[in-house]
Amino acid sequence: MNENSATFDEIQSAQTALSGVTARTPVLENAEVNARLGGRLLLKAESFQRTGAFKIRGAYHRLQSLTAEERARGVVSYSSGNHALGLAQAAGMLGSSAVLVMPSDASPAKMNATRALGARIVTFDRDTENSADVVARITSQSGRIEVPPSGNKHVLAGAGTVALELLEDSPALDAMLVPCGGGGLTAASAIVMAEGSPQTRVFAAEPALFDDTRRSLEAGKRIANPTGQRTVCDAIMTPIPNAFTFPINLELLAGGVTASDADVRAAMRFAFEYFKIVAEPGAVVGLAAILNGQVEIKNKTVATVITGGNIELSRFMALAGADNDT
Amino acid sequence: MNENSATFDEIQSAQTALSGVTARTPVLENAEVNARLGGRLLLKAESFQRTGAFKIRGAYHRLQSLTAEERARGVVSYSSGNHALGLAQAAGMLGSSAVLVMPSDASPAKMNATRALGARIVTFDRDTENSADVVARITSQSGRIEVPPSGNKHVLAGAGTVALELLEDSPALDAMLVPCGGGGLTAASAIVMAEGSPQTRVFAAEPALFDDTRRSLEAGKRIANPTGQRTVCDAIMTPIPNAFTFPINLELLAGGVTASDADVRAAMRFAFEYFKIVAEPGAVVGLAAILNGQVEIKNKTVATVITGGNIELSRFMALAGADNDT
Repeated sequence: MNENSATFDEIQSAQTALSGVTARTPVLENAEVNARLGGRLLLKAESFQRTGAFKIRGAYHRLQSLTAEERARGVVSYSSGNHALGLAQAAGMLGSSAVLVMPSDASPAKMNATRALGARIVTFDRDTENSADVVARITSQSGRIEVPPSGNKHVLAGAGTVALELLEDSPALDAMLVPCGGGGLTAASAIVMAEGSPQTRVFAAEPALFDDTRRSLEAGKRIANPTGQRTVCDAIMTPIPNAFTFPINLELLAGGVTASDADVRAAMRFAFEYFKIVAEPGAVVGLAAILNGQVEIKNKTVATVITGGNIELSRFMALAGADNDT
Repeated sequence: MNENSATFDEIQSAQTALSGVTARTPVLENAEVNARLGGRLLLKAESFQRTGAFKIRGAYHRLQSLTAEERARGVVSYSSGNHALGLAQAAGMLGSSAVLVMPSDASPAKMNATRALGARIVTFDRDTENSADVVARITSQSGRIEVPPSGNKHVLAGAGTVALELLEDSPALDAMLVPCGGGGLTAASAIVMAEGSPQTRVFAAEPALFDDTRRSLEAGKRIANPTGQRTVCDAIMTPIPNAFTFPINLELLAGGVTASDADVRAAMRFAFEYFKIVAEPGAVVGLAAILNGQVEIKNKTVATVITGGNIELSRFMALAGADNDT
């Protein structure tokens, strides 16, 4: 494992450091759903986290680790939206400033909310530009510190607190499915379970057309997705597994599972009707992969993280509305 | 106060009795919303309760108090839907059977879900028949025990556990707004606050056209609503304050507040976008009365109960969809 990966102890320290800053989100369960599935389904609802997604845990924890001088220089990162919101909020709370490099087709609502938190946005073209190049240019020109969405020890330790809370509330998990973009939450969850609950199998859950982690796990090396594809799961539409998190995932994960966009839309409806929650598409890929049968739940206890709820009502209706079954 | 009203001690006993049966629901808060309102807004989200509404607390607790012989005879009640779901579920769990007297215009989804839980439904016409007469006919013919939605000591004690949990989680409340139909949750909340937090002012929140409790509080006696009116708030479309709960409310409440159907629809959108929750219309009347300015929140801490989330996606879209602003 990468020597500067977060350890279980560091994730426990992050939990203490984030106490009073981030919310302890509920684990939701529905007896009727369990009866239908023949097992226990648990949803760790990070949609109720501050800024509407788990990302603030890692962003804030990374900013806590910076010196006052570094914070004064400000921070910069790539994000499709949820990390942007978390980083912008954390920067505001800790007297820093944030620049976010976002794809030009990012959710307008996420972009507006990021600006409302005081951050500046620089857009790039997903198909012709590399976000890392744009971020590198900004760090070299401005001296800002990069706070990546997943590839950092402190970001990882913050993200790991999701799994730590889940484990404290629900100690006997057979499996945990984690929506996987860059792979940070997935790797952090795997670290927590490897130490705290070794019998819990951790899976990366991805959109069917963006299953780079699943294919990379099978190949034993990082493989990119073809360019030019799209998915409704804007939050986890990543080009290739992160170089920092992939070795952790390769060592610790039980495998990868996928869901089609139609599965994801059905899972959004399911979460609305049975759990009364608003989940964004990228947040329900794990739920969708349970409902489409890729992970056995009969007589088992299976958890997934609902990673965020940042979606406007009109977009939710367009995706999850009953008229849109396909 | 009515001598067979629930006491604070009995509500505490109900909390113990319901432990492991009902969920301890989360209290939700949003920093951005608080900043906008200039105060703290807390939502006790009973939409996450078993069967999707707070009603199972009272129904189950009432069934716990029956003898085995009484449970074998079965139970009957009036309900617009949420009490029906709670009672049907409780009857199934405790080896009893339930008949529900429901208005013919009740939510089809609530009726179907009630049947799916094994209960039988008898419908009546809201404008020409009296639900109490239909229930009385069934009790006299069948020997079933009536478990009313609010007018019973054990039902009240069960409902009071909502406010008890809220008080434990959020001890310094200036005001609490309770969506009010028959007045059971309102009365039970007032009993809890009168003993546990006397500085907390408790208000009944009602649809503008069904403000019978507000007007009755002002008049000092029970006044009915005109017949033939409708509101989107199906769960609290009651004809007149309950004779059992009204004396409690008259003694303990700070007053009544109202919200129009348009306010309610806006509050459903607000709860969706800022709190990521699915709330049915009758569940957000308190929230709507905070947002429309009827209760001062600036520099204060104000809580309301989101009483339920039992609404289909299509109905939610029709009510809360952005195209339906009026």
